[in-house]
Amino acid sequence: MARDTSKKTILREGARLIHAKGFNKTGLQEILSAAGIPKGSFYFYFKSKDDFGLELVDYYWEFIEAMGETYLKDSTIGPLIRLERFIDAYQAMFENMGMRCGCPIGNLMQEMSDLSEPFREKVGDIYARMHGHIARMLIEAKDLGELPAGMDPASTAQFILNSWEGAIMHMKLAKSVEPLIIFKCMVFDHILKISQSGTEKRRKRHG
Amino acid sequence: MARDTSKKTILREGARLIHAKGFNKTGLQEILSAAGIPKGSFYFYFKSKDDFGLELVDYYWEFIEAMGETYLKDSTIGPLIRLERFIDAYQAMFENMGMRCGCPIGNLMQEMSDLSEPFREKVGDIYARMHGHIARMLIEAKDLGELPAGMDPASTAQFILNSWEGAIMHMKLAKSVEPLIIFKCMVFDHILKISQSGTEKRRKRHG
Repeated sequence: MARDTSKKTILREGARLIHAKGFNKTGLQEILSAAGIPKGSFYFYFKSKDDFGLELVDYYWEFIEAMGETYLKDSTIGPLIRLERFIDAYQAMFENMGMRCGCPIGNLMQEMSDLSEPFREKVGDIYARMHGHIARMLIEAKDLGELPAGMDPASTAQFILNSWEGAIMHMKLAKSVEPLIIFKCMVFDHILKISQSGTEKRRKRHG
Repeated sequence: MARDTSKKTILREGARLIHAKGFNKTGLQEILSAAGIPKGSFYFYFKSKDDFGLELVDYYWEFIEAMGETYLKDSTIGPLIRLERFIDAYQAMFENMGMRCGCPIGNLMQEMSDLSEPFREKVGDIYARMHGHIARMLIEAKDLGELPAGMDPASTAQFILNSWEGAIMHMKLAKSVEPLIIFKCMVFDHILKISQSGTEKRRKRHG
């Protein structure tokens, strides 16, 4: 196996196992067995399991970034509609996974924030980028008059992201998408529809 | 040490360590060392670490229930004010802990929901009781006309609880109470103040 491929295989198999079981529950040997790679090769690419975990955060981010590219970039569609579709795409994905695993970044945020300062910093950086995804849609919507002038996009986006992470955890617990549906209803019908006239504009513009 | 005391010591030390490090990262030997109890005694009280973990969920619940007794029962105070004080009390506690550890039930929900069906059921039972704490305040507030007649207390309480858990996770990550403050502002100023006249009534009644 070429070196580049080996590293990618370790990351892919590690990402899958750690998403399913958590970072601390997944043994290094388990990842190596799944990847079919000897321990020596692992240490060629990564200094330690923790070092590997930090690269894994970037690996997870690549997926989230690609979702953002797909759903949040098309400026011919209204920003709140794009945000809705972005959330719907995640919901469909979670349904396909049987409401298991949850958000890999949310999981690491919960599991690792108190255990490793480099992890906390790395996950914090990615969480800020996730926040940016949402905040940008709210800023655009505000500029279009779809949200009230007094709304603060940064704190509203933070609340939405944190609430989304909480809803995903409850989804894992309940093995139901109901928490995600309630989340969407509360966010789009109450939090972002404070300006009813803005909502009507949004509806009219985007059917 | 009397038997009852030994069991309580194991639970207390286990609760502390698992709250700080997570269930999978905390070894049984570590709990026994902290409790000063030999392995044999542990197996007198618990069949396994998982069995111990299930009792731990009840142990954590006792604390949450006591918080509910303290802050949610006094019917001379308006229900939304009680809810606000309940949340404030948790925030003060988290500040005292340096924004570490987070919610022990939220942690186990995230960590264990996919790993153990008995855990998932047990945590689900406790999460439903936590939901009940919030839902009861909303039902009371609705009956008093402090919330709009069309609001569904069950789903609103679920959204609030999930959003609270998400905000706590972010608090752990950011080592800041800002996510909790934004949570409170969004919940009390936007979600629960849909009825502005109700809010004014609440303010007047409770100063």
